[in-house]
Formats: sequence, C-alpha cells, structure tokens
Amino acid sequence: VSVHLVGAGPGDPGLITTRGLELLRACEVLVHDRLVAPELLEEAPADAIRIAHEPHTQEEINALLVGYGRAGFDVVRLKGGDPFVFGRGGEEALALAEAGLDFEVVPGVSALSAVPSAAGIPVTHRGLASQVTIITAHCSPAGRGPDYAALAQTPGTLVFFMARRALGEITAGLTAHGLDPETPAAAIASGTLPEQRVVAAPLAEIAAASAELESPLLLVVGDVVSLADRLGPNGRVASVLSGAQSSP
Amino acid sequence: VSVHLVGAGPGDPGLITTRGLELLRACEVLVHDRLVAPELLEEAPADAIRIAHEPHTQEEINALLVGYGRAGFDVVRLKGGDPFVFGRGGEEALALAEAGLDFEVVPGVSALSAVPSAAGIPVTHRGLASQVTIITAHCSPAGRGPDYAALAQTPGTLVFFMARRALGEITAGLTAHGLDPETPAAAIASGTLPEQRVVAAPLAEIAAASAELESPLLLVVGDVVSLADRLGPNGRVASVLSGAQSSP
Repeated sequence: VSVHLVGAGPGDPGLITTRGLELLRACEVLVHDRLVAPELLEEAPADAIRIAHEPHTQEEINALLVGYGRAGFDVVRLKGGDPFVFGRGGEEALALAEAGLDFEVVPGVSALSAVPSAAGIPVTHRGLASQVTIITAHCSPAGRGPDYAALAQTPGTLVFFMARRALGEITAGLTAHGLDPETPAAAIASGTLPEQRVVAAPLAEIAAASAELESPLLLVVGDVVSLADRLGPNGRVASVLSGAQSSP
Repeated sequence: VSVHLVGAGPGDPGLITTRGLELLRACEVLVHDRLVAPELLEEAPADAIRIAHEPHTQEEINALLVGYGRAGFDVVRLKGGDPFVFGRGGEEALALAEAGLDFEVVPGVSALSAVPSAAGIPVTHRGLASQVTIITAHCSPAGRGPDYAALAQTPGTLVFFMARRALGEITAGLTAHGLDPETPAAAIASGTLPEQRVVAAPLAEIAAASAELESPLLLVVGDVVSLADRLGPNGRVASVLSGAQSSP
C-alpha cells in the first residue's frame, strides 16, 4: 500500500490519529486540504513533496494520487475531518481502485461530533436525542438542496456542515415546515481551534445572531444545544482547545 | 483540569488521537469501557488505578469520576468511539459540571464512519448520499424505538448502532414503511479490528444473511453500500487493519 487517505481531524492538530501521524511522518508526497492545521503539515519530512489541493480540480487531485501511487511513492492524502464524511474521499478511492492501486483509508475525527463537543454540546444525550442527522447544503444529488419538509419532522439532532452561506435558507426552510422556531440552535465557527466562536440562539434567530461568524461554520439544531449552558466554554468544559497547544 | 473524557476510537488502537494517547500515558486513574482495545489499556502507567466500567452502574461511574476528580487525581475516562456519540459522555460531563469540577472532552473517531470505511463504504458520496442519519435502537427517549415510517423516507445513508438484537426489527420496520427491499445494506461486526466481519445483502435479506455475526454490530443502509464491491476488503482497500498491527 503506497497511497493513504488520512483524516486530519476537525482542526485542532492534537486530534489526528496516531496511525495518521505515523504515516504523515513517513510520507514522500503530501497532498493536503487548505483547512488542515499548519502544525500537521510540518510533521511531514522536510524533503517530502507538498501539494495543496486548492489550485487543483478534484480530477487533477485524483490523477496526482494515481500518478504518484503508480510510481511507487509513499503518498499521504491528508483531508480535513474524516475522508468519508463529506470529504470526497470516496471519489479518490474509486480513482485509485480503477487504476488498480492498493490504498489505505485512515479515518479521522469528524467535525460532526467534535465541533459541537468543543462547544459543550453532545450530539446524543439520553432523553434528548437518540438520533443524529448530518447534512450538507453542497454536493446534493441532482443539485437539489436538503428536503426541509422531512428534516423539520426528523427527531433528534440536526448537524449542518458548510452552513455559512446557507444559514438563512436552512433556518427559513425548517421553520416554514413546522419546526418550532424556539428550538435551540448553535452556530460554531472554526470549531476546536483557538479562534473558535460559538453563538447559541433559538432557531428563528440564529442566522441573524451569527451573521458575523465566518466559514467553516457548523450549525447544530436540537434540544441537546441547551446543554451548552452547563457544559460549554462558558460553563465547565475546558474543551479540546488545550490540545491545540500540545504538539501532536 | 483533572478529569478527561477521552474517545478511544472505533476499535483499532491506532485510531486513538494523539491528544488522547498523551493523556492516557500520563493518567493516575483510568476508567474504561469493555470495548476499548487492550493495547490502549497497556499505555496507561503501570501504577495507574484501573477501573472497568462493566461491574458498575452509570451512576457509580459518575460518582467515581467526581470522587477522584475532586481528590485531584489525573483521571482519564476512556470510552469506545466518541464520548458524545451514543457514549453517555454527556451524562458524565453533567455530573462533573454539577460537582463544580473542570473537565476536558477529547473527541474520538466514531464508529459511524470508521466502521463503514473499514468495509469500503463511504457514508457520503457525491451523487449517492449527501445526508447521513445515525440511530441507536437503545436509549431512545421515552423508551420508544426509532420512527421507521420517517426513516424509510429519509434520503441518504442510515447507520444503526448496536444493531445486533434489533436487526430483524429494523429491516422489517423499514421495508414495511416502504423502503425498497432491494436497498443495499451491510452488517459489520467488530469493525476496524482483525476479527472484522462484513456481510452485504439487499435490505430484505440482511438479517438472515448476517445471523451469525456477533456484537458489536453496525448496520449501514443505502446506495453507498454498493461501493464496497470496488472499495471493500475484497476489492482494493487495505482498510485500517494495518493500523491494528502498529502500536499507537
């Protein structure tokens, strides 16, 4: 196996897995997302070839992975969060499989729970939520947005990825289809990083209340958000931010 | 901060975070779940006090965490997966908060994506799934089971935790409410571990086909399961199992 799709975790560099860090420290080629912590990029060997995703299309990245993999280089494809949760890791894996190359997937800590966690919000909690739905407004099949009528009736916790631009649409869609405008909601920007910002408000007010927050932004909707009063950064939890100061 | 709620990851000991391992290696008291890898328990200092969850009730565990935390011990509460995804970490965090103790939550890699990943299944994939719903048959509010009528209409991928005993109920519930019996499904036992077993079958047949699999069992339902033919252990992916051989 020479190509490794590795989850970097949600932001805090201390949240990469030990297996992922081991591979990163041994790689010859590092292909990385923009949102990956700079501290992690520094963990790759000094003479590793470094390739940032952003100037490239997904097809170009796929071709680079196949090319370096076929040439026998030890390649780490470092992706924010988990490669298989809104990470397009499946597309890269398929490209490698179609080229006849072996590869390894190393899962990562996804923002879906880690980011609410850093704001003092457990996405599940006995008596409050035994179901979690994670949604992205981007990348939906056939270019359609989420089905707000169905989501408004969905029990448990809703977690929206990449919610910055769609925040008004999401909250309008949910309340228009009957979700209680008083449902607790939280918007979390740069979750798990020192610059993390959290705004909590009833669903009907969250878009206006969090207008100044920037991407990457995660939106959590559901009764579990009310626990942040007792568990959040203003409550008791030290959160994972202490991990940000520790080298991985 | 002296009490740390740490996610151990989905099974493979190489999938703990670097921050989690750092805390584990420095702890004075280790309170751990049954499903945590033995290799991780060995990472705690030899003279650390070790307490297994299983003989204790949740209330007793809460009291132990508060007691050792108040006495100033460096406590690691090591939980399978992520503490806040079906981990009852919120209950432990509330107990600590109510006792006036600071604590830290270190997220972990949840089985929700890592276990399907190890079977070659990305829970999201462009054109196939832009939404994921995770459900447990246990711990539901008011003691009721999942709402199968709603789940049968839910787009994207469904991931059921702790599905062993409820497998027949889940598949009957979904198909009775109109989910196509031919929907691809996979049952994964001991995911990410060397003893991992995967059975894939159409939804209507998955319960019978996987009757011999044992807990812990995760059930994945949705079109993404069809990708396992090309990405799974019998296809190209080396999966994360190589991590199981590497010490953390």
